[in-house]
Amino acid sequence: MNKVRVAVNGYGNIGKRVADAIKKQPDMELSGVTKAHPDYSALEAVHKGLPLYAISNPDAFFEQDIAIHGSLPELLERSDVVIDCSPGGIGRANLAIYSKYPNLKVIFQGGEDASIAPVSFNAQSNFEDAINQNIIRVVSCNTTALCRILSPLHDLFGIKKARVGLVRRAADPNQTKKGLMNAWYPTAHFPSHHAIDVNTVLPDIPITSLAGIAPTTLMHGHMVFIEFTKAPSNVKEIVDVFSENKRVFFVTTKRGIETTAHIKDLAHDTGRSRGDIYEVCLWKDAMGLDEQGELGMHLAIDQQAIVIPENIDAIRAICNLADKETSLRMTDESLGMGRLKIDPLLLTV
Amino acid sequence: MNKVRVAVNGYGNIGKRVADAIKKQPDMELSGVTKAHPDYSALEAVHKGLPLYAISNPDAFFEQDIAIHGSLPELLERSDVVIDCSPGGIGRANLAIYSKYPNLKVIFQGGEDASIAPVSFNAQSNFEDAINQNIIRVVSCNTTALCRILSPLHDLFGIKKARVGLVRRAADPNQTKKGLMNAWYPTAHFPSHHAIDVNTVLPDIPITSLAGIAPTTLMHGHMVFIEFTKAPSNVKEIVDVFSENKRVFFVTTKRGIETTAHIKDLAHDTGRSRGDIYEVCLWKDAMGLDEQGELGMHLAIDQQAIVIPENIDAIRAICNLADKETSLRMTDESLGMGRLKIDPLLLTV
Repeated sequence: MNKVRVAVNGYGNIGKRVADAIKKQPDMELSGVTKAHPDYSALEAVHKGLPLYAISNPDAFFEQDIAIHGSLPELLERSDVVIDCSPGGIGRANLAIYSKYPNLKVIFQGGEDASIAPVSFNAQSNFEDAINQNIIRVVSCNTTALCRILSPLHDLFGIKKARVGLVRRAADPNQTKKGLMNAWYPTAHFPSHHAIDVNTVLPDIPITSLAGIAPTTLMHGHMVFIEFTKAPSNVKEIVDVFSENKRVFFVTTKRGIETTAHIKDLAHDTGRSRGDIYEVCLWKDAMGLDEQGELGMHLAIDQQAIVIPENIDAIRAICNLADKETSLRMTDESLGMGRLKIDPLLLTV
Repeated sequence: MNKVRVAVNGYGNIGKRVADAIKKQPDMELSGVTKAHPDYSALEAVHKGLPLYAISNPDAFFEQDIAIHGSLPELLERSDVVIDCSPGGIGRANLAIYSKYPNLKVIFQGGEDASIAPVSFNAQSNFEDAINQNIIRVVSCNTTALCRILSPLHDLFGIKKARVGLVRRAADPNQTKKGLMNAWYPTAHFPSHHAIDVNTVLPDIPITSLAGIAPTTLMHGHMVFIEFTKAPSNVKEIVDVFSENKRVFFVTTKRGIETTAHIKDLAHDTGRSRGDIYEVCLWKDAMGLDEQGELGMHLAIDQQAIVIPENIDAIRAICNLADKETSLRMTDESLGMGRLKIDPLLLTV
């Protein structure tokens, strides 16, 4: 079988994780990764034996004695798919470069505007819509999490309206020129773009959202209220919806997982690469139904990791490599998803 | 006119602010404040000429050459009302002490369980219920803010259901043994106690809430969704409800007020004592109505200051010193409320 050759344009926080994940897929080959600057990430890529390409200034790499395989155009020439992992908003400019390669398929990230691609993608929610497309967009971390949770609940109980309060992390752990030290920073718009973005994937689910930024680097938090058209009779029915879903991970304060810091700690302890949590986390003991059958719950989202499985599935969908069920299973197994559930130690409470 | 003699038991973050506010009221006299330890706050109280009493160990004060007026029982003997500003949960134990003084009226704070008093108090919402009571409880900062916002909206538009996501500050600025450095800490219960506490004051408003703690010392943030029974036709109708209300302060990102840190900065700049914001702050440009007429908005609450005017009104209610309208006006004027509105500079955008 010919492997699909995948380029990762931008070996940053998302790109390096996507590259690692591609290396684990039997039906994919990492044709190369790009860097704009010869920094420690470039060294790490070379050290791991990844084919490194310069985005613009190859001399800067030569000066640092970092061996590169060529330029971005040379990489694109050798690739079937490019995953654009450039900083949000840069993808639009890159589109002009990509369009010079008529056989190249392109996957953008959620930092780009939805209009950049005909399909905004979430693996569970609309895998089929992406099959054989030329350009798709994997939605952002927050939208990915909400799609994973809302889509199966809507199928089973019907969502009358979902309301979400998002507590966004201020910066990624390695971002040291961005941040928020001691304040709450509301996003001054209602609804926040998250509800709108969920509707690019799931147009039939009524949803609204408010968001703000808190001084943390460790995961986003969502406070979710869901009104159903036919309410479940107890919380167990909700838990059961996700019990076999490897992209949802239940945590509980009864085992000392009280904050996002505990979740990250557990991910490191259980040997996850870079401490990544690809699953959307759901506090089991914080879930409840009120008198009207409305569900309240807390989610936590690893902003650097949750979209990684979605990017892998996006490659399979856009290249028509496998059907949805096969793709999700291959991705989940390759990334060890679900195995954070140190069952029954964690889940029996 | 005989002034009402008011004791403040616990000269801490709330107590020192209540004491300052009492000194500004023409119908009240500060009979004294208490401290458990002879720390810098005790020195500050003496320096300001406040009658200082020792909660338990007078020798500790004598050893530091801090002059005290006597013990807590001696202070209570000389008082008509005691404001219990002890740490949350201690009030219950203090009740046994207070009950030895049959003519002493008692005001507890929201850190105590609602069952401690027959009336949970918010000045705007249920002033009349507190008149001539012997024991009342001023609800917490978060509940006070929600009561101020929900009560007038319910009167005008009818609230079908309110949903609130609370982003709580991790510690007060001077609390250095408590905190949260880098995580989101959801409260593992649905609903959080805030919705339940609002219903102790406003039992007829359907409300639910989720809450968590963020690493900041500067104010709480609320993300509020309100469904109305008869929806307002535009946001201006909502703004108009609060335009004459001195306990609600509109802020706007259009004047650079983007975070809770900006609000505190403005309070300091405009000369507020201790940088206190007694008003509940409401981002004007973050307010919106969705297609179903549901309101979304962001609030910010100064956890150390918002209950101060409520405590002053609570004294007037419990002692029947003035009617609601007169009390609120006296309190607002004495504390300079509404004057943070550097109108028209701030409000015309």
